[in-house]
Amino acid sequence: MNKIYVVGIGPGAYEKMTIEAAETLKRCDCIVGYDVYIDLVRDHFADKKFLSTPMRKEVERCVMAFDEANKDQTVAMICSGDAGVYGMASLIYQVGADYPETEIEIIPGVTAAVSGAAVLGAPLIHDFCLISLSDLLTPWELIESRLKAAAAGDFVVSLYNPSSIKRHDYLQKACDILMDYGKAPETVCGIVKMIGREGQSCETMTLAELRDTKVDMFTTVFIGNSSTMNMNGKMVTPRGYKNV
Amino acid sequence: MNKIYVVGIGPGAYEKMTIEAAETLKRCDCIVGYDVYIDLVRDHFADKKFLSTPMRKEVERCVMAFDEANKDQTVAMICSGDAGVYGMASLIYQVGADYPETEIEIIPGVTAAVSGAAVLGAPLIHDFCLISLSDLLTPWELIESRLKAAAAGDFVVSLYNPSSIKRHDYLQKACDILMDYGKAPETVCGIVKMIGREGQSCETMTLAELRDTKVDMFTTVFIGNSSTMNMNGKMVTPRGYKNV
Repeated sequence: MNKIYVVGIGPGAYEKMTIEAAETLKRCDCIVGYDVYIDLVRDHFADKKFLSTPMRKEVERCVMAFDEANKDQTVAMICSGDAGVYGMASLIYQVGADYPETEIEIIPGVTAAVSGAAVLGAPLIHDFCLISLSDLLTPWELIESRLKAAAAGDFVVSLYNPSSIKRHDYLQKACDILMDYGKAPETVCGIVKMIGREGQSCETMTLAELRDTKVDMFTTVFIGNSSTMNMNGKMVTPRGYKNV
Repeated sequence: MNKIYVVGIGPGAYEKMTIEAAETLKRCDCIVGYDVYIDLVRDHFADKKFLSTPMRKEVERCVMAFDEANKDQTVAMICSGDAGVYGMASLIYQVGADYPETEIEIIPGVTAAVSGAAVLGAPLIHDFCLISLSDLLTPWELIESRLKAAAAGDFVVSLYNPSSIKRHDYLQKACDILMDYGKAPETVCGIVKMIGREGQSCETMTLAELRDTKVDMFTTVFIGNSSTMNMNGKMVTPRGYKNV
């Protein structure tokens, strides 16, 4: 069947995928994805054809998926976390404008804000926002305006792509903006590395401490709202602003 | 074992649960939850003990779970969507302060912003925020300030609890605030009803049209950013602001 599923595989470990995602991958002829994600699933779907491209070759990866589907194949394009949160879902629709004969279906998964939150305790719980600190596709001025808005609205914030070799001071800049626009330096924060993969670790700290913490690109960062508490090392945001 | 798992079961259908969530429920002695969620899983775990309380009896439900765990039982507290997004995870930690002998573990799931997005196409993709319009536990002024911040930051917005019998005009008020603070009336929006359950439906429209649309409490609402497009009825937000 000429069809592409865009499948969020969750943070990495097989059992953190939805049952629907696992069944979809079983049903497909070919699995397309970034090398690292292919390696996460390969052993569980050994009979499939695998196609991959390196990072930043996302458009080529989509074209590859449509070309394969056009051979009357069922194709799964895999993404880590969710397919629709910093994933490939929208690019598949955009590239798919040139392939009207191919059906597209999105199979959602657990994104890092949600899987990382479960490791830290219950940091999100209520209103929150996700902001990527990568300025590869988004101007830094827009990222900055979103950080200001997030602070002004007392949102819990989850930061994706908090750092890279080129952007080693972006987390520090982000923390400074959040503090300048209303978040207290003692706001409870947390970081989770390698969520759902070997070597997973987490830590809680204040926003002032987070500012001076080095993180890598495999880290997801959480910044609490004004009610977030540190309960014996767990980061916990109450559901509302009235007493339990 | 004296342990409580707080388990996000996803939108409803069994296969939309993670493999980890299903395995956790299989391993438990007792499943605790709101009646409606218990009914969603009961047939798949028929040998379990089930305990439930009606809506708004959340603290009692947590105490019930800890009392059961204290009989040296393994207990699952289930939540629809994710356990840590408008779910029971934080309340379990708060009530758990009185039950230090009970271990707590959070098993994440697919929240409605993510599962609903998959139905509409790819509305989130990039930075977004979740806002609940329920003022049961949060003052309306704070909700309003978050709507203003979300508009100012050009975030994609997913609204939870957009309406109820008492709050029939809240979505209209929210749309007016978003338009007053920067979102264009022609912003692409979408609604999804009964995500992942029988009777699922979705619709795309403009923000001006959304303002005059009646929704119920089983609806999740999506409001695009300034780049979000309607592509043949699919709501698609591009990954960045530079051309593909």
